[in-house]
Amino acid sequence: MKTEILYGIHPIFEALKAGRRSFFKIYLSQDKASRRLKKILKVAASLKIPLERIKASKLESISGTDLHQGVGASVSSYPLAGLFDIIDKRRPADANHFLLLLDNIVDPHNLGALIRTALCVGIDGVVITKDRSALPTPAVSRSSAGALEHISLTLATNMVSTIKLLKKKGIWIVGMDKTAETPIFSFDFSGSIAIVIGGEEKGIRPLVKKHCDFITSIPQEGPVNSLNASVAGAVVMYEAFRQRKIKK
Amino acid sequence: MKTEILYGIHPIFEALKAGRRSFFKIYLSQDKASRRLKKILKVAASLKIPLERIKASKLESISGTDLHQGVGASVSSYPLAGLFDIIDKRRPADANHFLLLLDNIVDPHNLGALIRTALCVGIDGVVITKDRSALPTPAVSRSSAGALEHISLTLATNMVSTIKLLKKKGIWIVGMDKTAETPIFSFDFSGSIAIVIGGEEKGIRPLVKKHCDFITSIPQEGPVNSLNASVAGAVVMYEAFRQRKIKK
Repeated sequence: MKTEILYGIHPIFEALKAGRRSFFKIYLSQDKASRRLKKILKVAASLKIPLERIKASKLESISGTDLHQGVGASVSSYPLAGLFDIIDKRRPADANHFLLLLDNIVDPHNLGALIRTALCVGIDGVVITKDRSALPTPAVSRSSAGALEHISLTLATNMVSTIKLLKKKGIWIVGMDKTAETPIFSFDFSGSIAIVIGGEEKGIRPLVKKHCDFITSIPQEGPVNSLNASVAGAVVMYEAFRQRKIKK
Repeated sequence: MKTEILYGIHPIFEALKAGRRSFFKIYLSQDKASRRLKKILKVAASLKIPLERIKASKLESISGTDLHQGVGASVSSYPLAGLFDIIDKRRPADANHFLLLLDNIVDPHNLGALIRTALCVGIDGVVITKDRSALPTPAVSRSSAGALEHISLTLATNMVSTIKLLKKKGIWIVGMDKTAETPIFSFDFSGSIAIVIGGEEKGIRPLVKKHCDFITSIPQEGPVNSLNASVAGAVVMYEAFRQRKIKK
């Protein structure tokens, strides 16, 4: 079985809570456990997960980073979802779909931040491109503050094929593009939708954009006039959330 | 005169555009200039800024980072604004104020991202705490994609005194707090307002919160239930922007 090393308090705590990964061992490098670390140790003890005390330098070497906050865990690889898991397991079954498609987000920090926000607005699942994209690594789990451990995430070999399939299921595809004339604030985000966000440098690829049902943009003022990808994603996800949850 | 080393294409290009800093020298470490770098060189030539070609390792050493993208600049220190500059220079003079107060944001990436979004929604000025806060360094200019070079930013020695002064000017103080009962989507962001965002770990400090006129929260779902500070700031700034700009 393929294993990986999760690190940091949030990713490990959330992975324990989510219960989707097998835990083989927890590594600790601190003598004095913080309050949050104690919560991890309590859950670990109840699940009989072996504990090993190691030096900080050793933990740095096995996790590949100094951002481990004194805790690491050897766990099973990331539990990817299938696209049909996400589409078919919607609860309640008659609810509208609310998906996020990420077309070549390459920065693990942006991917983590987008997943964290997606979980907060109740996105059913996230689809990321398999190639030329940041993947669901322990670094992304960390930058998502552990949200990655709860979200349903699937890899798309071909984003256009995925979009075609979602359309067949009655899901509307809403792409984000700076140049679009329709601002998000006058767009109707109700119903079954998938929001598409493009990569940091070039946005949504032309062929993917061609297959979107709608294209919408975030109004911006000022001399710099560009939002960070994770911020742009958060603004559109929250506008959709507002419209879907708040009675107008 | 105090100088500092700006680095990266966006910060240097935006600082040249903004015209608020003196440029003493531009350092280049690349032989082949990219399209964006060429734009910098063109402006630099027209302003007769001296150019020096140096090794990448030298540029890394003077900028203190390897994120310099092949360009650095020796410039005058960051042009801080005064609080009254921000309040009194509102154009048009009868427009409503729209300010952002940051109460101990410590991560330079978060500060940069918040400033970048603030510029995109037309915030008049940003107030940050002088102590226990990230300051407007070249690293923040970089993480703001150069937005720092355009925004009006002032340091507050005492955030409570600043709030009292803003209140006297007829500006309503709106604090963000996870536990607040009023969600941002049912709060009225019209009129002259200052939005207060607290630090990454503990949010707005209790004494500062006590002086807010209103407290409002971002609705959140799901098991992790926490947004990154820069994302939370973006969501509330955009909700305020939406209400202020879009006719309902």
